[in-house]
Amino acid sequence: MRTQVVIIGSGPSGLLLGQLLTNAGIDNLILERSSKEHVLGRIRAGVLEEGMCAMLEEAGAGARMRREGLPHEGIDLTFDGRQHRIDLFNLTGGKKVMVYGQTEVTHDLMDKREATGGKTVYEAANVSPRDFDGGKPYVTYEKDGVTHRVDCDFVAGCDGYHGVARRSAPEALLKTYERVYPFGWLGIIAEVPPVNHELIYANHPRGFALCSMRSLVRSRYYVQVPLEERVEDWSDERFWDEIRRRLPAETAEKMTTGPSVEKSIAPLRSFVAEPLRFGRLFLVGDAGHIVPPTGAKGLNLAASDVRYLFDALLEHYRENSQAGLDGYSEKALRRIWKAERFSWWMTSLMHRFHDSGDFGQKIQEAELDYLVHSRAASTSLAENYVGLPY
Amino acid sequence: MRTQVVIIGSGPSGLLLGQLLTNAGIDNLILERSSKEHVLGRIRAGVLEEGMCAMLEEAGAGARMRREGLPHEGIDLTFDGRQHRIDLFNLTGGKKVMVYGQTEVTHDLMDKREATGGKTVYEAANVSPRDFDGGKPYVTYEKDGVTHRVDCDFVAGCDGYHGVARRSAPEALLKTYERVYPFGWLGIIAEVPPVNHELIYANHPRGFALCSMRSLVRSRYYVQVPLEERVEDWSDERFWDEIRRRLPAETAEKMTTGPSVEKSIAPLRSFVAEPLRFGRLFLVGDAGHIVPPTGAKGLNLAASDVRYLFDALLEHYRENSQAGLDGYSEKALRRIWKAERFSWWMTSLMHRFHDSGDFGQKIQEAELDYLVHSRAASTSLAENYVGLPY
Repeated sequence: MRTQVVIIGSGPSGLLLGQLLTNAGIDNLILERSSKEHVLGRIRAGVLEEGMCAMLEEAGAGARMRREGLPHEGIDLTFDGRQHRIDLFNLTGGKKVMVYGQTEVTHDLMDKREATGGKTVYEAANVSPRDFDGGKPYVTYEKDGVTHRVDCDFVAGCDGYHGVARRSAPEALLKTYERVYPFGWLGIIAEVPPVNHELIYANHPRGFALCSMRSLVRSRYYVQVPLEERVEDWSDERFWDEIRRRLPAETAEKMTTGPSVEKSIAPLRSFVAEPLRFGRLFLVGDAGHIVPPTGAKGLNLAASDVRYLFDALLEHYRENSQAGLDGYSEKALRRIWKAERFSWWMTSLMHRFHDSGDFGQKIQEAELDYLVHSRAASTSLAENYVGLPY
Repeated sequence: MRTQVVIIGSGPSGLLLGQLLTNAGIDNLILERSSKEHVLGRIRAGVLEEGMCAMLEEAGAGARMRREGLPHEGIDLTFDGRQHRIDLFNLTGGKKVMVYGQTEVTHDLMDKREATGGKTVYEAANVSPRDFDGGKPYVTYEKDGVTHRVDCDFVAGCDGYHGVARRSAPEALLKTYERVYPFGWLGIIAEVPPVNHELIYANHPRGFALCSMRSLVRSRYYVQVPLEERVEDWSDERFWDEIRRRLPAETAEKMTTGPSVEKSIAPLRSFVAEPLRFGRLFLVGDAGHIVPPTGAKGLNLAASDVRYLFDALLEHYRENSQAGLDGYSEKALRRIWKAERFSWWMTSLMHRFHDSGDFGQKIQEAELDYLVHSRAASTSLAENYVGLPY
């Protein structure tokens, strides 16, 4: 079998790239290790930058997001018992973010792919990109006990941090950068109205908390916990008690609680692989980089990678130029590192670090005090939160 | 003997406070451990915020600064072989800084003090503030073998980090915060024209460098060195070679070198004592807090402390109100911590930290890249550099 671009991974970045390619008449095949149901069961990010929304529209998969997504014009920071709004809209000259779950994005892109005849192989085992350092790459995989081979021009590794794409890169060429944070996020989803119409990022002596949402009747809440914490030790009641203690009293009082429909603990990590291109293999999204979720950059960074890679592939097929492909890694990494910096900074600013000492704690408090009272500092936060230009 | 305010220390903050008090008709005495010549021999900061300049004028000691000082409207950052200007003037709506050495400030204030009959005791040994927790404080000191006692209303500790004032505070009431950086600054002064008409802060793989000046014919240069470095090991030639290697080639080529007239290594430290008031004893400037010199905040913070304390003393003597004195510590500390944050941040941004790892290094590079290309981030640097409002 032959296609132009093999995409490994059917998450939002693989689906988005695939759809843009399909719309442009470039043949592509998605190979996904898991089942469709498993992919749709993943609960991840939920705050989209305008650049990502525009790409969903460009892919022809933006209709439901436009209808059901919640445009947000601000976020709230709480600390020292007070709540401060960061007016994203006014500070950035009119930009917003869109609250719309990653699961919904994946769903809409899968529907679009099926409607436009895009091919996806689910439960493709032992996917393996080969000969991508030469001119004739191919990908092998197993399905129902049979080994298949797909010849192609390019391979896009959209298969996440644990995927095969990055692991296939020659070790000697790959440099990785990593920071692991000394805490995790315990998160729940509950079918209750969110406590606030915008997200609340809370800095509190007991630890960070985040009040987020997926819709007007579905809330997503998180609290910072030690890495060794076990989810079994957290009853719903304990979770609600804890998050309310980390919010200003008048906010906590308004919180509607209810049974959780999901509860899990995730570690926080910063990770970047360099470069993002190995011959005809390209790394996209989590396959190449991870940010801690503070600041909501993960999915949006995957989208900007797709933007750069799709434009480069289009240039290759339409204009027979390699310039875009040759420049992909550097261009993508420049934006990635800025988002890594922002995510690291916002994580550092909002969490309690028990090893940073009293001086570190006071610096954090001074920075929060400065941030909410300086238009320049608030604007810097805002322009990063809504997303730096592509 | 009796006076209204005893000021310990004849550095710029003690002299400035003394002059403002004298001008307001409030009797004061300065007790200085060293000789006048020794005080004038100290070589320290040289970049004044507008707020500090205004206070020198208010004290009646601004004429020479106005005449000989160099107003600067920008600073330059260099990294990755490139030079980027931060346009302080335009980013802050018209603010500048004034390059004028601390030695000159001290000189002008001493001249003014002598001209207006202010009293200073130099070489006052064993200065000791006493009974400041009650209503009748006094200060003892020894001079020429005789012990003297000065009764007063208030004691202002303007005697620096190593002075007696902070050490006199009850240990149980004093909390200190500290960070020591794993490097120092090797600095020289040379009678050569500065390499650039504005200051250059250089981030380089070999370490930080600063090109500063005291006048158009007197340059002040620094390079980051390991803490264990010895000044004897640095010939002038070695210093000039090193600093030129840390600058973009075209800047290094323009540098005029010459024999140093001063050469020393200083450690970098962040330090804050809380509170800054103990009954009728007040800590001012370095007696209460130290910043690393990156960002030039030390002398300027001393000036804002003087502003707050002078206003509070005036309120006390003119309106018989304690409110200003009661609020001094909290008000001063709020600005101090913001300047501590800025100085820590600028130090972190511009130096090489051999313990921050590859990830930390990449974050620093991403921050520099973001900083010089974002108006919001540049404005945040600029508004801190010219000085946050009092």
